[in-house]
Amino acid sequence: MIERIAILGTGLLGTSVGLALRAAGFKGSLAGWNRGAEGGQKALELGAIDSIAADPIEAARQAQVTLIAVPIYATIDFMEKLAGVLGPEHLLTDVGSTKRMIVEAAARLYNTPQRAAFLPGHPMAGKERGGAELGDAGLFRGAVWLFTDDPAAQRSAQGAELVKGWRQWVAAIGSRVIDIDPARHDEMVAWVSHLPQFVATALSALLEEEVGDAPELKDVGGRALREMTRLGASPFSMWRDIAYTNTEQVAHTLQMLEQRLAHLRENLRTPALRDEFEQANRFRQGQ
Amino acid sequence: MIERIAILGTGLLGTSVGLALRAAGFKGSLAGWNRGAEGGQKALELGAIDSIAADPIEAARQAQVTLIAVPIYATIDFMEKLAGVLGPEHLLTDVGSTKRMIVEAAARLYNTPQRAAFLPGHPMAGKERGGAELGDAGLFRGAVWLFTDDPAAQRSAQGAELVKGWRQWVAAIGSRVIDIDPARHDEMVAWVSHLPQFVATALSALLEEEVGDAPELKDVGGRALREMTRLGASPFSMWRDIAYTNTEQVAHTLQMLEQRLAHLRENLRTPALRDEFEQANRFRQGQ
Repeated sequence: MIERIAILGTGLLGTSVGLALRAAGFKGSLAGWNRGAEGGQKALELGAIDSIAADPIEAARQAQVTLIAVPIYATIDFMEKLAGVLGPEHLLTDVGSTKRMIVEAAARLYNTPQRAAFLPGHPMAGKERGGAELGDAGLFRGAVWLFTDDPAAQRSAQGAELVKGWRQWVAAIGSRVIDIDPARHDEMVAWVSHLPQFVATALSALLEEEVGDAPELKDVGGRALREMTRLGASPFSMWRDIAYTNTEQVAHTLQMLEQRLAHLRENLRTPALRDEFEQANRFRQGQ
Repeated sequence: MIERIAILGTGLLGTSVGLALRAAGFKGSLAGWNRGAEGGQKALELGAIDSIAADPIEAARQAQVTLIAVPIYATIDFMEKLAGVLGPEHLLTDVGSTKRMIVEAAARLYNTPQRAAFLPGHPMAGKERGGAELGDAGLFRGAVWLFTDDPAAQRSAQGAELVKGWRQWVAAIGSRVIDIDPARHDEMVAWVSHLPQFVATALSALLEEEVGDAPELKDVGGRALREMTRLGASPFSMWRDIAYTNTEQVAHTLQMLEQRLAHLRENLRTPALRDEFEQANRFRQGQ
């Protein structure tokens, strides 16, 4: 039975998890910590947490389950700081967007019978802007929540129970849980998440240069342009760690798209253009 | 006073214009013609038109204003067929997505005191799928409707009146009218409309190849992936003419984006990545 949860980082995701847990009937304590005081205060006001912790290490020690909801390198920092502090009665889990580095740190620092449990997680939900004020109890409804657990994990009985309990809460807040190998995870999210983001960033940056001085022309693009550039608003602070920890995979997907665009460009007046449209149509039929 | 309108092509746009005119209080006759019988029948059932014409040429002859709402080359075919049939008491207008070729044909065939008037138009509204059944009276509400009129046009008094009247109806159905030079139009829509479409097509086609055999992984991408590939459903039949009639401009925008993606790819771990995100953020702040 999970009765004490700590959330380290009450940005959009951390705050939304707190709100979603409450909406799903979680009655225990929800302690929160945030690097900026304002985000913590906002999460408290919204009811996503019921107390603000001055010290994240102490908050994790007092909780049974600690959710780390900060960028990837900050997640690994917490993992290193908490490894010596937590014991087999604790579960640590995260929301990081790439998993290989986090899974490596977990194998080194956690998941033995004497140590705390670590369950690597990645909810496929978000918004193009962050912050506690956008926290949303429904953010995970219908969204996929990926876990990249280690089959070699040898957890304490308590740790194994907490993992089971946390998985149940993730399902209770409306997520569809999928388990996947961490290397496959990073390869796959490069295609379906990172590539779309970097394309939207490049397209938005290019359009800012080309038509940014003619704001009336932005309206001309309508819904199509708005959708294709919405992710252009995404903050560098979050994507920097993704670019650093999944560089090769992201670079591969970008290069493949560059080639695809060149192919399309060279075939604007040949029958190959039809093939591209029909191939694209097939992708959407599956959606 | 416009009292007799013909719509040649009752696909998504033609049907939506008919519905929007009725919703805005147009009380006159609305004759429709469509290449496929089903689309005409559907437009009639929806009330977008009040009669189906067997012969598009005859329908245009009987109308004061004829809206051509078919792909670009078919529009130019109609312009050629109608030039000898219509007179100074007629206005012809269109919805084509590129304007240089249409404006050239208009200068050659229309807009003298003895001939029919032609007003080149382009509503920036649509859906990723076509067809009368998706017709929507609100499609143009808040959307930009571009006109690329010829300053050298020497129209009959009747023609000039009909142009004025048609512009008023376009505003009455909720569009924001912008006048623009045709060459600038084609350059600008290449950036804000054609480039986003071709990127979505290339991205969707690439993803179909890479993850098309793992449908459960498509869900993982969530809203971001759905938005970035929605236009992947767009039909080749419409985009072929755009690719053919705006080839150089589209090729230029694609090449610029290829370079931008390569730049981003080469800088996934350098400070230039921050610059790209900040530039993209600026574009969205203007939206």
